[in-house]
Amino acid sequence: MFYSSPPYSPITPQILADIRNAVGEDALIEDPAKLEEYGKDATDHRQTPAIVVRAVSAAQVQALLRLANVHRFPVTPRGLGTGLAGGSVPSPGGVVLSLERMNRILSIDTDNLIAVVEPGVINLDLKKAAQSKGLFYPPDPASLETCSIGGNAATNAGGPACIKYGTTRDYVLGLEAVLPTGEIMEMGVQTRKGVVGYDLTHLMVGSEGTLGVITRLILKLIPNPVSVNTLVVLFPELSMAMKAVTSILVSGHIPSALEFLDRRCLELVGDLLPFEGARDAAALLVLEVDGLPGITERELEKIGEICLENGALDAFFAPDSHKRSQMWEVRRQVSVRIERDWPLYVPEDVVVPIGRIADFVDGLPALEELYEMKIYSFGHAGDGNIHVSVTAESRDLAGKVEKGIRAVLARALSMGGTISGEHGIGIAKKQFLPMELSTESIRIQKEIKRIFDPNMILNPGKIFD
Amino acid sequence: MFYSSPPYSPITPQILADIRNAVGEDALIEDPAKLEEYGKDATDHRQTPAIVVRAVSAAQVQALLRLANVHRFPVTPRGLGTGLAGGSVPSPGGVVLSLERMNRILSIDTDNLIAVVEPGVINLDLKKAAQSKGLFYPPDPASLETCSIGGNAATNAGGPACIKYGTTRDYVLGLEAVLPTGEIMEMGVQTRKGVVGYDLTHLMVGSEGTLGVITRLILKLIPNPVSVNTLVVLFPELSMAMKAVTSILVSGHIPSALEFLDRRCLELVGDLLPFEGARDAAALLVLEVDGLPGITERELEKIGEICLENGALDAFFAPDSHKRSQMWEVRRQVSVRIERDWPLYVPEDVVVPIGRIADFVDGLPALEELYEMKIYSFGHAGDGNIHVSVTAESRDLAGKVEKGIRAVLARALSMGGTISGEHGIGIAKKQFLPMELSTESIRIQKEIKRIFDPNMILNPGKIFD
Repeated sequence: MFYSSPPYSPITPQILADIRNAVGEDALIEDPAKLEEYGKDATDHRQTPAIVVRAVSAAQVQALLRLANVHRFPVTPRGLGTGLAGGSVPSPGGVVLSLERMNRILSIDTDNLIAVVEPGVINLDLKKAAQSKGLFYPPDPASLETCSIGGNAATNAGGPACIKYGTTRDYVLGLEAVLPTGEIMEMGVQTRKGVVGYDLTHLMVGSEGTLGVITRLILKLIPNPVSVNTLVVLFPELSMAMKAVTSILVSGHIPSALEFLDRRCLELVGDLLPFEGARDAAALLVLEVDGLPGITERELEKIGEICLENGALDAFFAPDSHKRSQMWEVRRQVSVRIERDWPLYVPEDVVVPIGRIADFVDGLPALEELYEMKIYSFGHAGDGNIHVSVTAESRDLAGKVEKGIRAVLARALSMGGTISGEHGIGIAKKQFLPMELSTESIRIQKEIKRIFDPNMILNPGKIFD
Repeated sequence: MFYSSPPYSPITPQILADIRNAVGEDALIEDPAKLEEYGKDATDHRQTPAIVVRAVSAAQVQALLRLANVHRFPVTPRGLGTGLAGGSVPSPGGVVLSLERMNRILSIDTDNLIAVVEPGVINLDLKKAAQSKGLFYPPDPASLETCSIGGNAATNAGGPACIKYGTTRDYVLGLEAVLPTGEIMEMGVQTRKGVVGYDLTHLMVGSEGTLGVITRLILKLIPNPVSVNTLVVLFPELSMAMKAVTSILVSGHIPSALEFLDRRCLELVGDLLPFEGARDAAALLVLEVDGLPGITERELEKIGEICLENGALDAFFAPDSHKRSQMWEVRRQVSVRIERDWPLYVPEDVVVPIGRIADFVDGLPALEELYEMKIYSFGHAGDGNIHVSVTAESRDLAGKVEKGIRAVLARALSMGGTISGEHGIGIAKKQFLPMELSTESIRIQKEIKRIFDPNMILNPGKIFD
């Protein structure tokens, strides 16, 4: 039928010659040992591409995509391969289009609070460049030291700062993309606002490299909050921690981070905390407030009081940046240790209404037993975004665990939630898409895909078939 | 050709009977005297509809749109008619679908900081309902006392708060819409995050009622800033005021409003200011800081100092809410007095990079002379969004003024700006669209329209033909 995979061509010697001719020898990787590196992201999904094109310009991207239409071969764009849904894992026998060399920060404009960057810029590099000029680029996915801004935009990446500052979408004002047909198109604006025509920019954001290849981004920067303070709070029950979260928000405070770890996470990493009592607690909150010096401390004290009023066992202020890093390191080590300890690890990423987080987590043990999984829950309490880390004793349990994951996702949906808050669908969650979206919604999305990519050459098979 | 207007049917007695049967007598307005009211918005555009359907449910909207497809008559959705681009002015001989009676706030959820509302809810009513529960709905178009949330979403409305809080887009988490084909579709999420599939929600936002009729909105609320303080600053030159704006931002302050008036506006309304000296100044800034009590005052003092360092003539704090309203009233009276004083008045709405505002405004006198216009400039300094109010001595000058407006818009575009920051395109700016968007971009947008609305029955002729 109309939307099934077209018969793609393999990369024949003739096609390879055409590609070489179009993008130049320097851009090509053909060495099988090196190709493997470009066949994976941060999931377990693997697919070695036929070749890799490492573009340095939109013109090269254009040339490659035009050839892809002529010869009908699949092209998968790739930032720095830190995705958590397989979105940049290539199609069998296809081409990976790496944007890693397009990594220049073209401008940081302090008069207009705007940055113009190429897609391969590392998130942290942009943060630092902005900060050195008194400005701030807020989106902060966990992989910020290694992930690319282009990939962040393609997946609409979020992070702890989302509660106060929103996701990548909120910072992309405009972009240049090469459409699958080879057309280079400017979308959006170079200003802080714009409502001219349909919002193609934000249709591109979050489309996981299926509607176009982003080759330049115009990003909103904001004033840099000079001061940041951190507080860690322990609770005897997760439900108490979550009551504290809503009390904090309704009292007029907007923390710049509001993270939680559940009991099982505390068992795993509690030893790393620079104070006692963590292993006896059932929940931990990491809270940050940013803003002007002298003000953030006072605000955080009030937040600490609200936590204690809501039954917290103890609250610890990080007195300096060293202690602050220590506390964040605990949060980061959760994923590291889970991966170390368990042969099977699937990082799920549901969102439920904030008020349902505790209820959601409390219902997981029943599912664990049913499907032979162990689940670690942590994440962004202020957004309701829970990183449900599903593990099992053996990879042989993968089939059973997938059924378990389906039950976990169904539970999130039954609470008015969503199956992905920041990771996206890619190939990892494609089979679950119809659990959340209606047939009509998927039909419309496929038709939009068809407008941009009539020959279905760009990242086919991602999000939907 | 494919995209030209299909031959629409007039509302014949038979079609009217079908509509009456489908939506019920109570929903219909046929009285010609009343119809006129539904044929206009806040522009000069007028077109009396054949009939008006005042829906109370998505089911009625669905029934009407299904009939529109069967009989091929145009339907124009309408909130409360405060638009500034003619987006809700009906097609000749067509039907107006008013959402004014769908005006219930369905829930304000303090656990999850989310509101669910029908599209006809007045912006200020939602603000008040949220505030009564310690929460805040930030978008604040100038018409907030009379405009609808549905209309705000359809146009992605902004306002002074945009500099700190963003536009309506940033608060729409999900929505229910009736597609032009009659399908009722849920889009987006009921949570604070979600990245499942293409972002149809934000494609709908800003689409000016051409892709679907919004029948329910799920909105993000945030903690209510308890304290708000206001400062008014006079400058001898607009360029000095704008230097102060960037100094304020780069120093780490994010005001919740940062408005400016130019010299001509001050001449018009300076007498209303509760202090001396305004008429001798060339620019005025109105600044607000919101947040926690005891903190906002101190921050505003620092901002006042930055203004004085940048050459401000004088700075006035509003000591109480009465003075605060007085200062805002001055800002509001600009449009009122322009409309009172000038027979021809076209409210344009460009955006330029913040650092180019003064340059942009300083270049307007040359265009004024050339095209016999007088231009008042005011607006959102922190966003670069300038409400360029173009006036002329007589309506007979309309043709010449349109050429002048084209020159004004071209000037904004040449500075990296956009032709509309908050008002949208509708019919008022349709002829200027190709100045900003490429042929390819318009082609793709028209194809998207065609996916949603194959028979082109919903608000045809808006944004593009």
